[in-house]
Amino acid sequence: EGNAEAGKAKAAVCAACHGQDGHAQIPTYPNLAGQNEQYLVMALKAYKGGNRQGGQAAIMQGQAAALSDEDIANLAAYFSSLPAGGK
Amino acid sequence: EGNAEAGKAKAAVCAACHGQDGHAQIPTYPNLAGQNEQYLVMALKAYKGGNRQGGQAAIMQGQAAALSDEDIANLAAYFSSLPAGGK
Repeated sequence: EGNAEAGKAKAAVCAACHGQDGHAQIPTYPNLAGQNEQYLVMALKAYKGGNRQGGQAAIMQGQAAALSDEDIANLAAYFSSLPAGGK
Repeated sequence: EGNAEAGKAKAAVCAACHGQDGHAQIPTYPNLAGQNEQYLVMALKAYKGGNRQGGQAAIMQGQAAALSDEDIANLAAYFSSLPAGGK
């Protein structure tokens, strides 16, 4: 189980692309607010492990490489806790 | 530009995992409702092209293999048009 508060503290770097509220300002990037926590964990681990390739995946590979499993759990808890569609 | 109505007609098979309203019932699957259209296009093409591997990606590789670029555009238009967080 991730800790959303710890995830929030780690999420500053995510905001540049995914928005401060988890709603991406850049249309080719996904919104993260309200996304399913377990899916976010899986996606981050897929980037970290190199299972997501091509296109913009290299950006996320680099970001995810710096994250521990605990960081990933915390970030997933944080973004899933944000209201989907909310501003 | 995708056609959301055409995408809706194609989306029946997606509902089993991603929900009829684009909110996944299965926590390891992503919600699609209100997701950015261009991101959805990119993600479907990444599955189709084999750039997303591992875990559950094989399921989506199989689904996406059957989709034309037009289908992908239409599905992305449809799911992005659904209200995020709405039920």
